[in-house]
Amino acid sequence: MAAEQATAGTLSPDLVTRMNAWWRAANYLSVGQIYLLDNPLLREKLTLQHVKPRLLGHWGTTPGLNFIYVHLNRVIRETDANVLFVAGPGHGAPGVVASTYLEGTYSELYPDVSQDTEGLRKLFRQFSFPGGIPSHAAPETPGSIHEGGELGYSLSHAYGAVLDNPDLIVACVVGDGEAETGPLATSWHGNKFLNPVNDGAVLPILHLNGYKIANPTVLARISPEELRSLMEGFGYAPIFVEGDEPEVMHQLMATALDTAFADIRAIQKAARTAGDTERPRWPMIVLRSPKGWTGPKTVDGKKAEGFWRSHQVPFSDMSKPEHLALLEDWMRSYRPEELFDDAGRLRPEIASVAPVGEKRMSSNPHANGGALRRPLRLPDFTDYAVKVPHPGGVELESTYVMGTFLRDVMKANAASRNFRVFGPDETASNRLQALFEVTNRAWEAETFSYDDHLARDGRVMEMLSEHMCQGWLEGYLLTGRHGLFSCYEAFIHIVDSMFNQHAKWLKTASEVEWRRPIASLNYLLTSHVWRQDHNGFSHQDPGFIDHVVNKKADIVRVYLPPDANTLLYVTDHCLKSWNRVNVIVAGKQPAAQWLDMDAAIRHCAQGIGTWEWASTDQGGEPDVVLACAGDVPTLETLAAADLLRSHVPDLKVRVVNVVDLMTLQPKSEHPHGLSDADFDALFTKDKPVIFAYHGYPWLIHRLAYRRTNHDNMHVRGYVEEGSTTTPFDMVVRNRLDRFHLAADVLDRVPKLQGDVHTRQAIRDKLTEHARYIRAHGIDLPEVRDWRWPQKA
Amino acid sequence: MAAEQATAGTLSPDLVTRMNAWWRAANYLSVGQIYLLDNPLLREKLTLQHVKPRLLGHWGTTPGLNFIYVHLNRVIRETDANVLFVAGPGHGAPGVVASTYLEGTYSELYPDVSQDTEGLRKLFRQFSFPGGIPSHAAPETPGSIHEGGELGYSLSHAYGAVLDNPDLIVACVVGDGEAETGPLATSWHGNKFLNPVNDGAVLPILHLNGYKIANPTVLARISPEELRSLMEGFGYAPIFVEGDEPEVMHQLMATALDTAFADIRAIQKAARTAGDTERPRWPMIVLRSPKGWTGPKTVDGKKAEGFWRSHQVPFSDMSKPEHLALLEDWMRSYRPEELFDDAGRLRPEIASVAPVGEKRMSSNPHANGGALRRPLRLPDFTDYAVKVPHPGGVELESTYVMGTFLRDVMKANAASRNFRVFGPDETASNRLQALFEVTNRAWEAETFSYDDHLARDGRVMEMLSEHMCQGWLEGYLLTGRHGLFSCYEAFIHIVDSMFNQHAKWLKTASEVEWRRPIASLNYLLTSHVWRQDHNGFSHQDPGFIDHVVNKKADIVRVYLPPDANTLLYVTDHCLKSWNRVNVIVAGKQPAAQWLDMDAAIRHCAQGIGTWEWASTDQGGEPDVVLACAGDVPTLETLAAADLLRSHVPDLKVRVVNVVDLMTLQPKSEHPHGLSDADFDALFTKDKPVIFAYHGYPWLIHRLAYRRTNHDNMHVRGYVEEGSTTTPFDMVVRNRLDRFHLAADVLDRVPKLQGDVHTRQAIRDKLTEHARYIRAHGIDLPEVRDWRWPQKA
Repeated sequence: MAAEQATAGTLSPDLVTRMNAWWRAANYLSVGQIYLLDNPLLREKLTLQHVKPRLLGHWGTTPGLNFIYVHLNRVIRETDANVLFVAGPGHGAPGVVASTYLEGTYSELYPDVSQDTEGLRKLFRQFSFPGGIPSHAAPETPGSIHEGGELGYSLSHAYGAVLDNPDLIVACVVGDGEAETGPLATSWHGNKFLNPVNDGAVLPILHLNGYKIANPTVLARISPEELRSLMEGFGYAPIFVEGDEPEVMHQLMATALDTAFADIRAIQKAARTAGDTERPRWPMIVLRSPKGWTGPKTVDGKKAEGFWRSHQVPFSDMSKPEHLALLEDWMRSYRPEELFDDAGRLRPEIASVAPVGEKRMSSNPHANGGALRRPLRLPDFTDYAVKVPHPGGVELESTYVMGTFLRDVMKANAASRNFRVFGPDETASNRLQALFEVTNRAWEAETFSYDDHLARDGRVMEMLSEHMCQGWLEGYLLTGRHGLFSCYEAFIHIVDSMFNQHAKWLKTASEVEWRRPIASLNYLLTSHVWRQDHNGFSHQDPGFIDHVVNKKADIVRVYLPPDANTLLYVTDHCLKSWNRVNVIVAGKQPAAQWLDMDAAIRHCAQGIGTWEWASTDQGGEPDVVLACAGDVPTLETLAAADLLRSHVPDLKVRVVNVVDLMTLQPKSEHPHGLSDADFDALFTKDKPVIFAYHGYPWLIHRLAYRRTNHDNMHVRGYVEEGSTTTPFDMVVRNRLDRFHLAADVLDRVPKLQGDVHTRQAIRDKLTEHARYIRAHGIDLPEVRDWRWPQKA
Repeated sequence: MAAEQATAGTLSPDLVTRMNAWWRAANYLSVGQIYLLDNPLLREKLTLQHVKPRLLGHWGTTPGLNFIYVHLNRVIRETDANVLFVAGPGHGAPGVVASTYLEGTYSELYPDVSQDTEGLRKLFRQFSFPGGIPSHAAPETPGSIHEGGELGYSLSHAYGAVLDNPDLIVACVVGDGEAETGPLATSWHGNKFLNPVNDGAVLPILHLNGYKIANPTVLARISPEELRSLMEGFGYAPIFVEGDEPEVMHQLMATALDTAFADIRAIQKAARTAGDTERPRWPMIVLRSPKGWTGPKTVDGKKAEGFWRSHQVPFSDMSKPEHLALLEDWMRSYRPEELFDDAGRLRPEIASVAPVGEKRMSSNPHANGGALRRPLRLPDFTDYAVKVPHPGGVELESTYVMGTFLRDVMKANAASRNFRVFGPDETASNRLQALFEVTNRAWEAETFSYDDHLARDGRVMEMLSEHMCQGWLEGYLLTGRHGLFSCYEAFIHIVDSMFNQHAKWLKTASEVEWRRPIASLNYLLTSHVWRQDHNGFSHQDPGFIDHVVNKKADIVRVYLPPDANTLLYVTDHCLKSWNRVNVIVAGKQPAAQWLDMDAAIRHCAQGIGTWEWASTDQGGEPDVVLACAGDVPTLETLAAADLLRSHVPDLKVRVVNVVDLMTLQPKSEHPHGLSDADFDALFTKDKPVIFAYHGYPWLIHRLAYRRTNHDNMHVRGYVEEGSTTTPFDMVVRNRLDRFHLAADVLDRVPKLQGDVHTRQAIRDKLTEHARYIRAHGIDLPEVRDWRWPQKA
């Protein structure tokens, strides 16, 4: 379908002249941002006083980005296409910022950086300058949904952005450095999940400038045949644009983009009107151009253009007069006097290369997705309530119940097509299979008659790559939609670093006036540490919570609903929220249900509370507080309370359950934090607290260390003991089980410290457990069959 | 080079019969492990009493693994090859364990699981059973260096294992599920870094069984032409083996392996004797076979063999009599009576299919790398000492000095070829460039005349994939060698989950009697949070330390050497250690040097200590303790001490520096933890402690919350405030700077709380700083020029 290379000229001489002028202007502004404090149009001879005292930024990728940008602008003008720009090498921000400034968007959003000489001075000065703008395509950058600081996620963001946006084309520049990362390498497969009817298109532009920081790149040093095979193997029709002569390259790039856009339209037309169902070979472009293109050929006698020495600032020590002269020559080589008028404004014949209004990539509404976001239509979650006649009276899979709610969320928003569920092949395994009553798994690759819920327009995105799931979802949210990512708890660590970047984006974006809030990134972490019955030690890690709480308090929330009704409440709450990362941890195995819906609402609204029905302190001061967070710790805590009630009936026990982990932090540290008075009222000022926690125990100390009664808090949790074993043995190995919890109480309540009899009874039970499971391979019947007593 | 498919038979009828019998035996033992408690040879009719009460494990991938295993055995016998087996789908452990049992290795290492009926019974019973063995190819599994619990790392482990092992071939099975992960997708490029002269070979076997948990796989649902293009694009010569008819498949697989092994030998010969320097097209095999091959075709009327329903346990509810019958039929279909003699021993004609001794893949010495590990030859690190005439008297790049030591470590071990340095294109950027005086970057792709330190036999491994660096290094260490991974601090989070898996491996391996300790995994984290001058917020994250300390105390160490001499000591120490993960955090920017080598040795040997020269408590009780950990916090702490000395000369300040973060934990929690008495002696029992810490401040509380004086500890650290700004502005934004630290002292030392004058002076300085950097873009001269006063 794709004609490969043009030799004839697509562009008229006039147009190529104007486009080249735009490119020179963008390059000029890029160098200016990196180097200059003042004298922005070189109206006077350059002196050291005009140069920044610290030179920061990345030149190498920038001229290539500028080249791509102006060429996309030409196609947008000519075809009225709706294009969003993703700069994989986001450190090429001097270029991205320059283009958005030339388009006028920058000055519209930041009037201070005006379209005149003074504005140019500010534009230059602010870049990587204290109080100015950062060095990457950060939230401050118009038109950006992708910071590109950490490499690897440009293409998954791009694929996420075009889902359910049939008219949108994301032009995604993939740097050849980024292309070496794992997440990027697998994201080429995004084309197997893209529906040409209902989704838009991604045009990947693999930019081979040949070098990373100090090294060639792999893809630039394999043969062209191998690279073509690789891209064809990923299912694309590659178009090659290679060279360094601007005139020739302009014609080649124009032809390549015309071909690619025509191919995209042809594919979409075939699918949308002719009903073609074969998976298309989408076009992609391989652009091979020199690193630091148009920059100094050599610096201090060493190769610079077309080499890794152009990666950052090509030369820095400006106390050398020859460097100052080199900079001036370099900048004057773009002939600024031909580009900007006397007032410092881009000349209109050059400005006319760009599209106008929202067709400017810097103004594309999808890049400020919050402004497009419409709240989800949510059914009343209480309609999905599990009937709980008395605590522990029902056993079921909590995430299954959540799935029935999600099913109807999916249905209620089917028309607006703004909700999707993501996960690495685990939607059904995580018991969310009710979703498949109303939708399917997205799948554009080959299908067979016996396949199960695969469809071209499925709204459940499953690929065995947590990176891809996270990247898709981020791209989907950043363009104004909603979603949920369900994942095995241990393996969400695979995207720790992606979470970091997204949380940082949210924090900064909330400080940028013109950005509107986007929907929250919601995680359901299930198949959790305590129930990895099939998989064992490698699948046991509850540490994502620890990772998450290091980020800004405003951004993160962690919920540990102990049963289905609390999970419903939390799910509804998270789906309504914005600009957050919500982590929900809940089990998928059949488990006892504790709260009816009314109680669940009361409990979740507080986020933490006493369970009177499980307590024996009659509302007075207890002898001990049994606190718990997480479904399995809640079960063991209640069983411990039951055990204590039968062994030491006079003991006054208070059971406190935590749904919203952030309540434990001081109010000064987190908006959900309990006041000290409320905390003291729950946990007492001086009584022992035995806290059974889902994850690593020290997190509770880290959250609560400033609390009055902290020194009396004794926390049990996961301490990296585990294997493929029984559910109860898992809690015993980590001393989170009912017997160890009861023993902790005996050790810490002064009046019980002489109770040798109960101590021995507990020790005996642990011995019996160990003996029994080795003999039978299953848990002690009295543990398996234990139920919360209906009447205390 | 590769002939593609055989139709003629490579195997004699007798051999194919014996190999097929081995395969049946392995499959039989696999099913037995998943299902049976007793009656291992079905000598009596199967009853419910013989079946495990909980059915755990994964059948789907297992028969394919068994098939590959027996075929590799045939080639090993015939060619005397030295082959290590990596099972990417490590949950196929029933198969891996079965094969190692059939080879006899299992019984040699675990005599209790003997080669007879009783041994078979134990073999079956122990699998995924309490007190037994885990469900993956875990450290307990003979011949394994790869657990395969978390998917994605098989191929990078394989490439790491063959580095500097010229005779070794790693047969690496890549599941088609795993192949969708990012880390796996990029690790195909390992062939661009493999030297056919000095390294061994990796034979990837992409096993297309078509399904994940509940979904088809991408690579099984693209056209064969696309898959071929993809593999050729990755630089391989693929050989396809496809089908489900065992007789045919045996012949096809034998021919494929003969071709692949012959190609490997030919490539190695061409490179080693003919001096061929072209990058070879290494062979790889695509094996397409049914998921759950030889298992039940249908279960309860639903497709099972060749479908995802075979992924785990194909049927579980054994209370249904038809399931018990199905199981018995299935197991009897392997005709166990033909496979095992009356005593329950594999018949000798079948056993003879396997190689003997260390040629058995289950006995390959490289799989117990610790037994091959030889300590590094280390030069005396004190020879690299920086002369520090007085504290702060010299400024230099600490990691540069470390690089000179590493250079000579590299040189001293050149002959034994057992040390490599890994990093994503950052070795020189991280100032370890002295390494390039004695070696180069490994590079097998195209080179140009102007390339910089690229060589086919380079010992520095650089690819822009933290996953690849970590995987290579793990594979290298697990096979008995040594290494160091240098990485930007923020982006080491990319491998959080790989670190988890390695730490878990180390913990379990240390509990397996026959495994010898391997060299520690050493990280140098540099380009750290405080000095991301070019990159800003996205590059600022010191949380890897928090992640690491969640793992078993025995396994993890964290060092924050404040200068070059302490860094030298720590580096030497880490390179000598084993079975650990050592995290070293150190800056690469020019920075003040504090300790001469003697002082550095004394300080590091304790891991923590008072710096008397910076303190004014004269060895008595101080008014306040200024503690610090990390190079930048140390600088700010000393500057704060200096400030306090001039403003409040009577204040008795003690400066405590922490190199070994684990000293802060109680001795009961970590072997490096200080005793409470020693801790109290340093930090006092009741004086304010202002702690300036490199990372997230709450980690210090998490480590020290049990200490006597914890309530008086006030910690400053990184609180997610940052941008592209000046170094000093970064610490100010996070309130870790000298002025905020001094203000903290004023707030907390009772006798200073009325000192309005000093307070105002400090406030004024912060205002001046803010004004100055916005005006000039550089830090206040008095901050930049501050030096520790030579005489107090």
